[in-house]
Amino acid sequence: MKRNVLIIGAGGVAQVVAHKCAQNNDRLGDLHIASRTRAKCQAIIDSVHEKGAMKAPGLFAAHRVDAMDTPAVAGLIRETGAQIVINVGSAFVNMSVLEACIEMGAAYMDTAIHEDPGKICETPPWYGNYEWRRRDRCKAAGVTAILGVGFDPGVVNAYARLAEEECLDTIDSIDIVDINAGSHGRWFATNFDPEINFREFTGTVYSWQNGGWQSNTMFEVGKEWDLPVVGTQKAYLTGHDEVHSLSARYPDADVRFWMGFGDHYINVFTVLKNLGLLSEKPVKTAEGQEVVPLKVVKAVLPDPASLAPDYVGKTCIGDLIRGSRGGQPAEVFIYNVADHKEAYQEVGSQGISYTAGVPPVAAALLIADGTWDVGTMVNVEDLPPRPFLELLGTMGLPSRIRDAQGDRPI
Amino acid sequence: MKRNVLIIGAGGVAQVVAHKCAQNNDRLGDLHIASRTRAKCQAIIDSVHEKGAMKAPGLFAAHRVDAMDTPAVAGLIRETGAQIVINVGSAFVNMSVLEACIEMGAAYMDTAIHEDPGKICETPPWYGNYEWRRRDRCKAAGVTAILGVGFDPGVVNAYARLAEEECLDTIDSIDIVDINAGSHGRWFATNFDPEINFREFTGTVYSWQNGGWQSNTMFEVGKEWDLPVVGTQKAYLTGHDEVHSLSARYPDADVRFWMGFGDHYINVFTVLKNLGLLSEKPVKTAEGQEVVPLKVVKAVLPDPASLAPDYVGKTCIGDLIRGSRGGQPAEVFIYNVADHKEAYQEVGSQGISYTAGVPPVAAALLIADGTWDVGTMVNVEDLPPRPFLELLGTMGLPSRIRDAQGDRPI
Repeated sequence: MKRNVLIIGAGGVAQVVAHKCAQNNDRLGDLHIASRTRAKCQAIIDSVHEKGAMKAPGLFAAHRVDAMDTPAVAGLIRETGAQIVINVGSAFVNMSVLEACIEMGAAYMDTAIHEDPGKICETPPWYGNYEWRRRDRCKAAGVTAILGVGFDPGVVNAYARLAEEECLDTIDSIDIVDINAGSHGRWFATNFDPEINFREFTGTVYSWQNGGWQSNTMFEVGKEWDLPVVGTQKAYLTGHDEVHSLSARYPDADVRFWMGFGDHYINVFTVLKNLGLLSEKPVKTAEGQEVVPLKVVKAVLPDPASLAPDYVGKTCIGDLIRGSRGGQPAEVFIYNVADHKEAYQEVGSQGISYTAGVPPVAAALLIADGTWDVGTMVNVEDLPPRPFLELLGTMGLPSRIRDAQGDRPI
Repeated sequence: MKRNVLIIGAGGVAQVVAHKCAQNNDRLGDLHIASRTRAKCQAIIDSVHEKGAMKAPGLFAAHRVDAMDTPAVAGLIRETGAQIVINVGSAFVNMSVLEACIEMGAAYMDTAIHEDPGKICETPPWYGNYEWRRRDRCKAAGVTAILGVGFDPGVVNAYARLAEEECLDTIDSIDIVDINAGSHGRWFATNFDPEINFREFTGTVYSWQNGGWQSNTMFEVGKEWDLPVVGTQKAYLTGHDEVHSLSARYPDADVRFWMGFGDHYINVFTVLKNLGLLSEKPVKTAEGQEVVPLKVVKAVLPDPASLAPDYVGKTCIGDLIRGSRGGQPAEVFIYNVADHKEAYQEVGSQGISYTAGVPPVAAALLIADGTWDVGTMVNVEDLPPRPFLELLGTMGLPSRIRDAQGDRPI
């Protein structure tokens, strides 16, 4: 059944979502995109038409909305007849958009945990602070809400479920490894909004080990990983959304997230953090002006969207899952490799936005055809993984598996 | 003859000047100190009385003045009967204070070149842009103006003149080396106002070599130096005031300035500079606020004045002068070693402020007794060096000489 889609947000990931919805609009319905700045939405729609991305003739309309304003979002859902809302706006708007979806009976998706602007790194499990508190209301309203359905979280959660269903009898550990081996050619830049990017690394690093939460600091625990295509890469234990849901499904396994960083990134981050320049608390200049240092750092850094045209190289993101099969120790690495330049040529965004933006569109197609329209709130590991991963394989994000038998498509 | 002294400024160097004037007030007259904030001046006077630093009973009074306002400074000179003005205020006020001295016939001193807030690193020789253009007027008015009479510039200029008079027949090169081997115990801090500190290193590095100006960038040319007390230290070719006057007196010699920096300082500086955070040009945040990044960096860094109580270790500043004597190649190293903790215990400032603040008081004493009261504008190398250096030896800054005959007091 065709369903109208409303995209919330107008950044790099929204650009990918828009292009991928357009490429599949024969299986969706009318397309809408809304953000605080309507012109940004229109620019995305223009780029869709420039690429000739609309598969079938159809509507793609731009709107202005304050996504923190639940009645306004609900009104837009009513006006557009949207049955699926793909929220790729700021992490601060998740709950206000979800509330609008519950009210209107529309399916909801996001790609990252909800955040309160005034708090950094809340108590684990993170989903317990905002999202899961609304699970009963989603169920009562029959609303499908798929949390964290980007790449990581999202596809990596499906990889864990695939390993459980098809590869291993028991699971002892899930190590998610995210390596960006690409280069943007700038002296320094963050791949997405510096404010969100740095917030991710200034708090406690939570991992789930030995049946409980472990606390570390960022860059405290590093490890080299030998990966397909991108080779040996150093990655660091990092706090990340999926650890907080996977540890609920696999409480007996260690669940860790590792993000790759070069020494240069770590050095710049360390200098800025130690000087206090990543603080979200205002300081006062000698002249008496109140300024939030992090906002000044953001102002001097390159706009992440400006990096895409020159980005080259590949990303490799996957799950190394260890356990047993037939009574013997066994391990699998399930992964995707994406290419920055190919992503830019196809949809006008770099590879990191691409890997985050394609999965929610695949999920929208699975909701539209009923496969994933479960009428309640779920994380991705709660859903059958194969239809999702196979569909992604046809949409530009193929998955492969490497184990004792070799390296092959899933 | 006793002469009243007016100190302009209320920072770490002014604190040293105030204490040293007080310790020698039997040879000076009334003491006055003025800055934009009278309370800062009063706090310095309070610290003088707490240490019982006034040698003889006498006046020490605090005033408020805008040192950019020449008539206001002239009025204060008239009101206080000051015959000697020691300007240790911001580098931006030198010319407005000098103009007031010329108008009132008071002797003038400063410790650093005049700067225009809107310009970084002007055309060499720097003294030619502002100071030397007023030389004829000083001479006509019979006003003694001693430029750059801190440690460097200042004492190091006298070291060059001493080598000319007493050590060498010809001079081939003058390498001034400034090493701070002390530690303030903070992760990062600048030893004086970050705005001025960083400005010093963001422009072209000028040195005088092979009879002309050479241009380099900061940290481009580094060299290890084997020095007394502080040992082997790495220092970098740096732009500095004294190169611009010494090269006029010694045009056939190479004149270079080297400042010591640890790898940590260089790394922090490089990150901040490359990100654009040392810029004095405003940027606009995503929220539309206009902010000068350098002022935010200044706001997050420790107040330099707060470093003094914990500062330990020593400074070594000197001139390595090469040339010939009796037809043979010869070299001398003339230098001072100062101790941060001793400086703090004596005058409540760290060693870097101490080395900059004692010399202008010695110069004031030499003006008061007539030795240096030359009635025109000079740089320190234009004056007889031995009375100055011997007086400094009795005031806490002894000088030593190291050559083929060994290491001994001058």
